[in-house]
Amino acid sequence: MPPVTFTLQKKDRNTGARLGLLQTPHGTVKTPVFMPVGTQATVKTMTPEEVAEVGAEIILANTYHLYLRPGADVVREAGGLHKFMHWERPILTDSGGFQVFSLAGLREISDDGVTFRSHLDGSTHFMGPKESMAVQEALGSDIAMAFDECVAYPAGREEVEAGVKRTSRWAEICLEVHQREDQAVFGIIQGGVFPDLRRRSAREITALDFPGYGIGGLSVGEPKELMYSVLDELQEYLPENKPRYLMGVGSPDCLIEGVKRGVDMFDCVLPTRIARNGTVMTTYGKLVVRNAAYARDFRPLDPECACYTCRNYTRAYIRHLLKAGEILGLRLTTIHNLYFLLKLMERIRRAIEANDLEAMAAEFYAKYNSGKI
Amino acid sequence: MPPVTFTLQKKDRNTGARLGLLQTPHGTVKTPVFMPVGTQATVKTMTPEEVAEVGAEIILANTYHLYLRPGADVVREAGGLHKFMHWERPILTDSGGFQVFSLAGLREISDDGVTFRSHLDGSTHFMGPKESMAVQEALGSDIAMAFDECVAYPAGREEVEAGVKRTSRWAEICLEVHQREDQAVFGIIQGGVFPDLRRRSAREITALDFPGYGIGGLSVGEPKELMYSVLDELQEYLPENKPRYLMGVGSPDCLIEGVKRGVDMFDCVLPTRIARNGTVMTTYGKLVVRNAAYARDFRPLDPECACYTCRNYTRAYIRHLLKAGEILGLRLTTIHNLYFLLKLMERIRRAIEANDLEAMAAEFYAKYNSGKI
Ligand SMILES: [Zn+2]
Ligand SMILES: [Zn+2]
Repeated sequence: MPPVTFTLQKKDRNTGARLGLLQTPHGTVKTPVFMPVGTQATVKTMTPEEVAEVGAEIILANTYHLYLRPGADVVREAGGLHKFMHWERPILTDSGGFQVFSLAGLREISDDGVTFRSHLDGSTHFMGPKESMAVQEALGSDIAMAFDECVAYPAGREEVEAGVKRTSRWAEICLEVHQREDQAVFGIIQGGVFPDLRRRSAREITALDFPGYGIGGLSVGEPKELMYSVLDELQEYLPENKPRYLMGVGSPDCLIEGVKRGVDMFDCVLPTRIARNGTVMTTYGKLVVRNAAYARDFRPLDPECACYTCRNYTRAYIRHLLKAGEILGLRLTTIHNLYFLLKLMERIRRAIEANDLEAMAAEFYAKYNSGKI
Repeated sequence: MPPVTFTLQKKDRNTGARLGLLQTPHGTVKTPVFMPVGTQATVKTMTPEEVAEVGAEIILANTYHLYLRPGADVVREAGGLHKFMHWERPILTDSGGFQVFSLAGLREISDDGVTFRSHLDGSTHFMGPKESMAVQEALGSDIAMAFDECVAYPAGREEVEAGVKRTSRWAEICLEVHQREDQAVFGIIQGGVFPDLRRRSAREITALDFPGYGIGGLSVGEPKELMYSVLDELQEYLPENKPRYLMGVGSPDCLIEGVKRGVDMFDCVLPTRIARNGTVMTTYGKLVVRNAAYARDFRPLDPECACYTCRNYTRAYIRHLLKAGEILGLRLTTIHNLYFLLKLMERIRRAIEANDLEAMAAEFYAKYNSGKI
């Protein structure tokens, strides 16, 4: 049996939404799912127990970051990423492609991979499909992602087409070199916002028969409507019985709209990053709890939320912590934002089950966009 | 019945150590006790549940810091400090004296108090015994400390004598103006390292019959032996049936030696502060877990420790977190250090109970100073 299998349980009658189960060596995940990001082998500010308590069933970790620090060998010697970071549920690792093309000091792209400079110390490194697979095998994630070329937005047709070609070639290499039998490799579809290139990438990548597919090169600065239209067009080119993972997406509206367009998996640093900047998502929209308006506001962040933060603390206290530079403030906002998004995903799954997704989405938007915080 | 009472349960046969119970409106505390410091209404990096889980029965909060931010009125409106910060066990607040004399930009000392500049924004403020009591009553701690003058070390006799005089006068004023019936006020004894001034301060302050006594002006830079000799001399001048609180002390050796000299209560930022700098206390001495030596050390911080950190994480992982600037690293070292010190206090209490303190201390020192980390 393959290490990771996907069972499609239900398709929504009115939208492209799907309900599924993703089985992995470290447990089963209900989809559609949002994966909190644990960039450096930790979901920032949280213990694994807290990550589980807010409802996360799977997290994402970053190959590029862990390769540079502490190094893949340290994680392997520790017994793999799960053991190293004390998280026993499933982990998906990205390929490192996005980071070496964007974050790192890019040196040179060849058909074998990318020469880049570490953002930490400027040292020179090389990563291609073989290297990415080797690092992800050392990390021991449940799901590894094929090494892809993510082209920035906006980009010309030629550049995007070259990226599609390389991504397809590299996907083949990833499958050839990958060995771990307790780890799945998902392919990644590129093609920017060019419909025919997206179709071509989808055809080439799905021909390789991966157990799941990432949709890359979206949420990189293009208008949301353009992202939605790419997702709309892509649906019929993706096999129904494989999970679809929209990479880098995590705002409530994009989650809902992505699910409607057949997406099963999401990840994004957004909820945790804005939390650390003092912004929280609530039933009635975003709230910048750092603002002076909340200095004497003794209500919870979101009166309709049942998270640890909202059960025990007020806006006034959290604002005080953030203004005073206290770490507990970052912890409390992070807990709330992740709980909020993961509850939204739970609500989405229940709505699909009840053939009620559109009504649920309308109700959510009505409150979220009301501004009645 | 007074809000805070102390019951002396046992005196050690061989040392000055005492076993007691400190009853407060928010519960009973076993003494000798170490109080973690929650400067800004949070024990840095921790939730109140975690503070309780490591074994803390009472915490300290800082009047000066909370007066400046968020302001005593905000805390009062929140329903007091316990409710504001979600900590239901006892709280002791310091008087603010130490901070206005050391941390703040000092402007002018008069017999009424101190004019100082905020370290946050340079604004001018005044705090004396009346103001300190008013702030502490607004905070609603279980134990308030009388406003004292803490003279820096080293200081000449005249300066220390002037501090003793003011501290005595201010202690009277504190008692006169204090009103809350659910809050006790402890007096503070000053006198630097001058035996006769210590005796004088002890005589004057204990004459006011406070329900407990702080020993201030120690652990401010003087040699440890000098501190111990002050404690030795002070013992006979302190009433046996009142708790004795040595302020600002928290290294393992000073805790043990303080207990031997009759101290019942301690507080210090040391365990939490060094934790955030990557230094932990272990059974076999201090360990700087940030060091490269621990990059592939997959043992817990302290193999003899049963704290959350040591049960679940390795030195290699914690070092990685600290090097990567991850907040979880600070949390894990803080949890361990507080657990370590609070377990030491528990061990001390059991040893007093068993008339075994000196043997326990010798055993502790033998391991702690062995360097066999
Ligand atoms: Zn919440
Ligand atoms: Zn420990």
